[in-house]
Amino acid sequence: MSLPGQLNIPNRLLLGPGPSDAHPRVLAAMANPLLGHLDPAYLEIMNETAAMLREAFQTKNPLTFPISATGMAGMETCLVNLLEAGDKVIICQAGFFSLRMVEVATRCGAEVTTITKPWGQVFELSEIREALQRIRPKALGIVQAETSTGSWQPIEELGKLCHEFDCLLVVDAVTALGCIPVKVDEWEIDAIYSCSQKGLSCPPGLAPVSFSPRAEATISKRKTKVQSWYLDMTLLKQYWGAERAYHHTAPISMTYALREGLKIVLEEGLENRWARHLKNHTALKAGLIALGLHYTAQDGHQLPQLNAVRIPDGVDDMATRKKLLMEFGIEVGGGLGDFKGKVWRIGLMGYNSKSSSVFTVLAALEQCLRSAGAKVTPGSGVAAAELAYQR
Amino acid sequence: MSLPGQLNIPNRLLLGPGPSDAHPRVLAAMANPLLGHLDPAYLEIMNETAAMLREAFQTKNPLTFPISATGMAGMETCLVNLLEAGDKVIICQAGFFSLRMVEVATRCGAEVTTITKPWGQVFELSEIREALQRIRPKALGIVQAETSTGSWQPIEELGKLCHEFDCLLVVDAVTALGCIPVKVDEWEIDAIYSCSQKGLSCPPGLAPVSFSPRAEATISKRKTKVQSWYLDMTLLKQYWGAERAYHHTAPISMTYALREGLKIVLEEGLENRWARHLKNHTALKAGLIALGLHYTAQDGHQLPQLNAVRIPDGVDDMATRKKLLMEFGIEVGGGLGDFKGKVWRIGLMGYNSKSSSVFTVLAALEQCLRSAGAKVTPGSGVAAAELAYQR
Repeated sequence: MSLPGQLNIPNRLLLGPGPSDAHPRVLAAMANPLLGHLDPAYLEIMNETAAMLREAFQTKNPLTFPISATGMAGMETCLVNLLEAGDKVIICQAGFFSLRMVEVATRCGAEVTTITKPWGQVFELSEIREALQRIRPKALGIVQAETSTGSWQPIEELGKLCHEFDCLLVVDAVTALGCIPVKVDEWEIDAIYSCSQKGLSCPPGLAPVSFSPRAEATISKRKTKVQSWYLDMTLLKQYWGAERAYHHTAPISMTYALREGLKIVLEEGLENRWARHLKNHTALKAGLIALGLHYTAQDGHQLPQLNAVRIPDGVDDMATRKKLLMEFGIEVGGGLGDFKGKVWRIGLMGYNSKSSSVFTVLAALEQCLRSAGAKVTPGSGVAAAELAYQR
Repeated sequence: MSLPGQLNIPNRLLLGPGPSDAHPRVLAAMANPLLGHLDPAYLEIMNETAAMLREAFQTKNPLTFPISATGMAGMETCLVNLLEAGDKVIICQAGFFSLRMVEVATRCGAEVTTITKPWGQVFELSEIREALQRIRPKALGIVQAETSTGSWQPIEELGKLCHEFDCLLVVDAVTALGCIPVKVDEWEIDAIYSCSQKGLSCPPGLAPVSFSPRAEATISKRKTKVQSWYLDMTLLKQYWGAERAYHHTAPISMTYALREGLKIVLEEGLENRWARHLKNHTALKAGLIALGLHYTAQDGHQLPQLNAVRIPDGVDDMATRKKLLMEFGIEVGGGLGDFKGKVWRIGLMGYNSKSSSVFTVLAALEQCLRSAGAKVTPGSGVAAAELAYQR
């Protein structure tokens, strides 16, 4: 066969729903030579990574480490470990990723009940209480930061509510961690999963998870084995714990990356990081509104790190995103599921949450909108963002 | 919390069962900035990677690509996609990794029959024929290169035999691919999995798999959904195929790595690569025997890339390996399962299969053996290797 040429990566600014650009220090960390997965030096790196991950998740849960696969495997890990065939589970469904929770829980043989809201809206505690009372499930799953709609679901009081009904709370924090507050212990979350390629500014490839002692006890009382050997927390914790029992060959370079990514997060400080995401979001939002765009998520519940806006009537989705990518080197996301062809998703995550991203994407988007025939006052997006930063 | 310091990777030569050292070009490839998982430039990289992977596997199977997790997830992928509850499967069991196949197949709800040989020995076709006749299974699983024993199981005729009985052949090629011949089409293999961190000289993190049209047809006739959503080939092939349907966020940097690793394999040429592994093995083996060490694998069936030898009586396993690691920076593997504390496993895989590895490990091992009280003629290992290279 004729072999492909040298790897030649075009210049991009990744402002979609993720992957977001990796921090340069993270890329440099990955270029280090490998270590064995049982080398004392690597075991120390694992310990450091798990400790920083606990800090990022704001938890003391011993069972906290990255799964050796991407974010969706984090979802599967939480559900396959907690659920057994016939178990009742409620999924709060208001977007693409909650639909996936339904799919994965169903494949565990669970009896799934969904409560639904229109895409872009969030659930009230009272609605969830009613469902818990009615179903009395073993677990309830909810997405904190719904990547398909840009909605920010409040979950501060949800763990307490679930525990009233002896129900475990499972949270999708794939787009939340490293961008907005995620307080596992204070909010009484029982199982949570995230990813490496968004708020943590690493490449995709790892899925941080954390399980509360309550969840761990549930796992230890299982009647059947976890259907996935690869994602079995009982086996994995013997590798991450003192036993250091070989399970699989850990993804060494990705662990280097995550260690560096978490270190950068904690050097900045969580509060500072959340404030930075909010500040840049406020500017971007002012700019997007000035360009005539409307958010899909309910007012007051819009994610700083994922700005989902409706595509204006008459503007072609694919052509506009192609122009953004090919002429400006900027990637933004298209819509998923119900929102396909109707929504753009603009991410300002981790390293990419900065004013240069905001101004660059607003300037580029203005050009693309105008060439698609939309009526936009020249410079209005950038001007509105500038004003917002000055406030 | 107090944050850990700068990442500081000690100098190592990884001559264990894997990870083996990544090729420097692979590490450099990973330092490239990210692309989106649906970026046309990334889709092209996926196509190139899949095409080279087909060449490495010597197959035309359309369903050939890396799973976004480590090698053990490749095993799980093959088994969860092919097996349904109640299906009969035979596992040829003669080492640690075939035991894992039993465990994973059992978690699929399959009815598992094992045929066994003492660790280090290989199966005869007649023994397998007898089992196929007796059980009439849906699939038969076998390990081509058993990493725990260093045994090289011949499988050239096995696909044909299985197909006589309408049985699918599943092969573990985790330690085989890129080191010894793996000819998926010629040998009529139906499902095969490997890893990135051994013969392909990439970091751990991906599991190349390939499914024959016969296996694909079996999957399409399933009565139940694949229990793992993350490893469901029917969904994954819609991302790797023309549909480009979003499934999970691909591990971008690891794909860069695998593309580069495969390119290096094919630049060298498969035949040349296999010959190189054999040549360096012959020299290492001469040296190890001169040092008084004995192979665990049956004569005539020893893997070039993984040399498993019995630890001499009176020599302490942990102390010797620690000295090798700490004083010489060389990692070799300890024993697994039945061989724990009794066996060392010395890998010469991919980039590390070279004369410098052979001489370095023989010289270092001699020092360690002597300081452990073993009687070794000074320089005997290195001298024997030199002689073998001159032949």
